[in-house]
Amino acid sequence: MIDTLVRKIKETNNPTVVGLDPRLAFVPDHIKEEAYDKYGKTPEGAAKAFLAFNKAIIDEIHDVAPAVKPQVAMYEQYGAVGIQAYIDTIAYAKEKGLVIIGDIKRSDIASTAESYSDGHIGRVSVEEEQFEIYKEDFITLNPYLGFDSIDPYMNNCEKYDKGLFVLVKTSNPNSGEVQDIMVGNEHLYEYMGKLVAKWGDNYIGESGYSRVGAVVGATHPEQGKILRAHMPKTYFLVPGYGAQGATAEDLAGCFNKDGLGAIVNSSRGIIAAYKKDTYSKDFTHKEFAKASRQAVLDMRADLTRVL
Amino acid sequence: MIDTLVRKIKETNNPTVVGLDPRLAFVPDHIKEEAYDKYGKTPEGAAKAFLAFNKAIIDEIHDVAPAVKPQVAMYEQYGAVGIQAYIDTIAYAKEKGLVIIGDIKRSDIASTAESYSDGHIGRVSVEEEQFEIYKEDFITLNPYLGFDSIDPYMNNCEKYDKGLFVLVKTSNPNSGEVQDIMVGNEHLYEYMGKLVAKWGDNYIGESGYSRVGAVVGATHPEQGKILRAHMPKTYFLVPGYGAQGATAEDLAGCFNKDGLGAIVNSSRGIIAAYKKDTYSKDFTHKEFAKASRQAVLDMRADLTRVL
Repeated sequence: MIDTLVRKIKETNNPTVVGLDPRLAFVPDHIKEEAYDKYGKTPEGAAKAFLAFNKAIIDEIHDVAPAVKPQVAMYEQYGAVGIQAYIDTIAYAKEKGLVIIGDIKRSDIASTAESYSDGHIGRVSVEEEQFEIYKEDFITLNPYLGFDSIDPYMNNCEKYDKGLFVLVKTSNPNSGEVQDIMVGNEHLYEYMGKLVAKWGDNYIGESGYSRVGAVVGATHPEQGKILRAHMPKTYFLVPGYGAQGATAEDLAGCFNKDGLGAIVNSSRGIIAAYKKDTYSKDFTHKEFAKASRQAVLDMRADLTRVL
Repeated sequence: MIDTLVRKIKETNNPTVVGLDPRLAFVPDHIKEEAYDKYGKTPEGAAKAFLAFNKAIIDEIHDVAPAVKPQVAMYEQYGAVGIQAYIDTIAYAKEKGLVIIGDIKRSDIASTAESYSDGHIGRVSVEEEQFEIYKEDFITLNPYLGFDSIDPYMNNCEKYDKGLFVLVKTSNPNSGEVQDIMVGNEHLYEYMGKLVAKWGDNYIGESGYSRVGAVVGATHPEQGKILRAHMPKTYFLVPGYGAQGATAEDLAGCFNKDGLGAIVNSSRGIIAAYKKDTYSKDFTHKEFAKASRQAVLDMRADLTRVL
């Protein structure tokens, strides 16, 4: 799947992943009202509004972006109906040919990790029957528990051609509190980066990159460069561009010299573009998805400018 | 909620939490067949079988154990129907007066953590309406992202009287790969333990313990003792007893001198007790829940023996 992702990035000439992290405040009134009319102002109404919102955006961006990254928390918070909207969003985006990065950041001991792995990127068994449930292509994982919490995903990665992005250096302001502490002569994020690169060493695809990628926040430009040097065969999933404050220049160091090696996430900057001054003069609320398309094209231009 | 947990532990004289981590292999045939007859050999059939299995166990253990800990992965793997079984299990256990520790081990940046927090231990808003979704009393969290990934839970903890258990030293064999690395003169788990104790310092209840607890695996007896000394006001959630190999003696050091300060999880040792030789001679498959009750009583005797 890492090879598919690299191919799609080349085809669209766009290392952008669209973060499908809907919030009710981002969803235009006409979408919400339709959902509330049918399902009430309920968790189900919210979940159905998210799904309709996502579908309209997917329709407009699927030929100019290689991938989408739904953030499961936005859906999970509404319970079972939210999880169904997450699953339905993934199914729709797959139909449209997009690569799916499920941002789930799970972490658990091996016997439990197997269940996450089977549900998200493998198959679950009910007696003699097998079922594919979430159908992400990649998922994000938290490495604090060590390799035996990551290893249970590798079998499904191989069997079903899937991939992982493991947290190394996150984009949030306090990430340094843990990730920047000194471990001997290096920072913890460097230690973790080398560990993740080692975990991925046996899973290098034809593209030259590993199935095991890393999450490296764009808000820490120097650290991105350092990690790029430590982890040449590891694809980076880079959050923090736009709403979190990072510019294209900040994250240029996350890429290799060939212009590959990183895919940059933007969530509200794309999905709520129609609310920003830049786009609100050209697009009405009903044209929110067209504004998202324009935001993807503008982000592509901004990123390719620095590569 | 930490005060409620301490009170329930005293009332039952039992620092045991029953891990509701069902697997189809643990569920007796008569329960599975009833669920499959109605819902087919499908994810929904599996989820309904889990719920019936859990309810029967809850009926038998609710007066002898203070708390249950459903592991969300076991349910989440089956998609929306699985999440509904997780929610229904929690609702049923609450009705029976048990404290609920949702083992979710989530981790994300603040804006995302807010959604997890609102869904799991707070309220989600849909326009002017508010909804309580998962209703756990405590949840587990992964601290790799630092305090701003934990802080979004504190508001709901205060507002709705909830609590947290933050991973410090996990019970899995490879946990040392990350958690035992040296940070200056101490191990990372010690550094994290002190950090978690600091995070919890402003949230000490009448019991003398903080709303912010820690996960400390019983499979590492020496580390448990060290952390106990570093974190006197932090309640420990201790996995690893039984199936993972730790004995009562191994985890005695996780307790304070007053016999409080830790709650010990056992999952398959209790919920699948009827399959073990110790219990299978006294209990038939149909009496699986009574075997679970006996296993709780036996675990209580084993733990209180070393306190």
